[in-house]
Amino acid sequence: MTNSKNYIGVFDSGIGGLTVVRSIMNIMPDENIIYFGDTARVPYGTKSEKQIREFASNDVRFLDQFEPKALMIACNTADSVARETLEREFDLPIYGVIEPASRKAASVTKNNRIGIMATAATVRSGAYTKMIEIFNRDAQVFPLACPLLVPLVENGRFSKDDIVVTTILKEYIDQLTVHDVDTIVLGCTHYPLLMDAIKSIVPEINVISSSDAAAEALYDSLRRHGLLNEGKGGKHRYYVSDDAESFSRNASIFLDEDLDGEVDQVRI
Amino acid sequence: MTNSKNYIGVFDSGIGGLTVVRSIMNIMPDENIIYFGDTARVPYGTKSEKQIREFASNDVRFLDQFEPKALMIACNTADSVARETLEREFDLPIYGVIEPASRKAASVTKNNRIGIMATAATVRSGAYTKMIEIFNRDAQVFPLACPLLVPLVENGRFSKDDIVVTTILKEYIDQLTVHDVDTIVLGCTHYPLLMDAIKSIVPEINVISSSDAAAEALYDSLRRHGLLNEGKGGKHRYYVSDDAESFSRNASIFLDEDLDGEVDQVRI
Repeated sequence: MTNSKNYIGVFDSGIGGLTVVRSIMNIMPDENIIYFGDTARVPYGTKSEKQIREFASNDVRFLDQFEPKALMIACNTADSVARETLEREFDLPIYGVIEPASRKAASVTKNNRIGIMATAATVRSGAYTKMIEIFNRDAQVFPLACPLLVPLVENGRFSKDDIVVTTILKEYIDQLTVHDVDTIVLGCTHYPLLMDAIKSIVPEINVISSSDAAAEALYDSLRRHGLLNEGKGGKHRYYVSDDAESFSRNASIFLDEDLDGEVDQVRI
Repeated sequence: MTNSKNYIGVFDSGIGGLTVVRSIMNIMPDENIIYFGDTARVPYGTKSEKQIREFASNDVRFLDQFEPKALMIACNTADSVARETLEREFDLPIYGVIEPASRKAASVTKNNRIGIMATAATVRSGAYTKMIEIFNRDAQVFPLACPLLVPLVENGRFSKDDIVVTTILKEYIDQLTVHDVDTIVLGCTHYPLLMDAIKSIVPEINVISSSDAAAEALYDSLRRHGLLNEGKGGKHRYYVSDDAESFSRNASIFLDEDLDGEVDQVRI
């Protein structure tokens, strides 16, 4: 941990942000990553803006001590609600999920009608609507709170063959297709695990993972700034605010492989 | 708030404990109640024992300042994991949900086979098994973690006509009926809202609400000690650790009537 400047700091309310870690590992296998998951206070998406901002500040204060070369807000809720607070409080290059996903959605839509599936807090913030309109002035954005998806995914329920999953997804997606959207943003880092189930319900719709979009944008930026790591495979380190063991056990679902780094519980 | 000795303090991880408040109001309409819901840290049932104990201590420290005549742990998770800690730390008459529900289950079962539906943390603690065996040495107890029920209820999904609710309930209940249980304890204060849906799936099984059982036991104890309030209708006051407004909005589902007291956000 001596050459700490060479780390990417990633945080999330809990375990969902690991889909961003997975996307980063896929594109940038040589990057070192320090992950923090606030598992003692998860979830954020059902809580108030004030509370989310306070939690997010605590998370970043923890990662800041490692002097990361980039900080990734791997949580749509925190990015949509706490971004300005974090930029004011910390002197770090901050990356997020909302802007890259919005940019991608704004460019792939053909009919300018874009649906957003997200947590209640992300929807309430209006962050996706504001951001997409910056990239595409003609876009109409339809944000929808999908509060049951995080609990389902956290309980390992995301298969397209699970009637509970498909029933709930159909209820949500119907509220978007009624607006004739041709593009849907998965505006929560838990949702990429539902990609197959969603595609099986609406194969004709563009479905955008905010986790993939975030990793791609981070790659572009690090490359442009000459900050990419070269060489021999990145190191990965995980910290959580609640029990490390249960995080380790569930992490493989989100990473799609076993956890390859140590997990430690810290008090923040 | 001058005659504060005359209050019952009730706490829960969030909003579920209001089913206990409802049961108390039904039996003891003249009691004054101060409720605290730790909505900033909800849920407890998916978190570690150490974390739950710390949260519960903070909750009771807040209520302790009102010098309640009785403290009700209106959360099965907190009661099963943090009870001993609270009894050590606070000089208060502490009441809970596990003992009354266990006593009731132990006495109504005919075949001595009892299922428990509860959170992961409550199941892990083994609290129900230990307690029921005290009251009925012949009982066999089958505890089952039902992690999707709290999110469903919190999202207003508990109708017996909701296919998502009945599908998930059937999956869980099948894992209990396979053991030939004749009695099921709803070992989480969110679950009484699912009573109708559960009874429609297994009408032949005794279903015990830990919220009702807790209120009945509290009534018996206060009566025996000559501590019941007489007279002119109780006052009710609510405190939460996150946004008061969203708590007020959702409370009516759990109370089965509009909230009749003030709600304030406090920092604990």
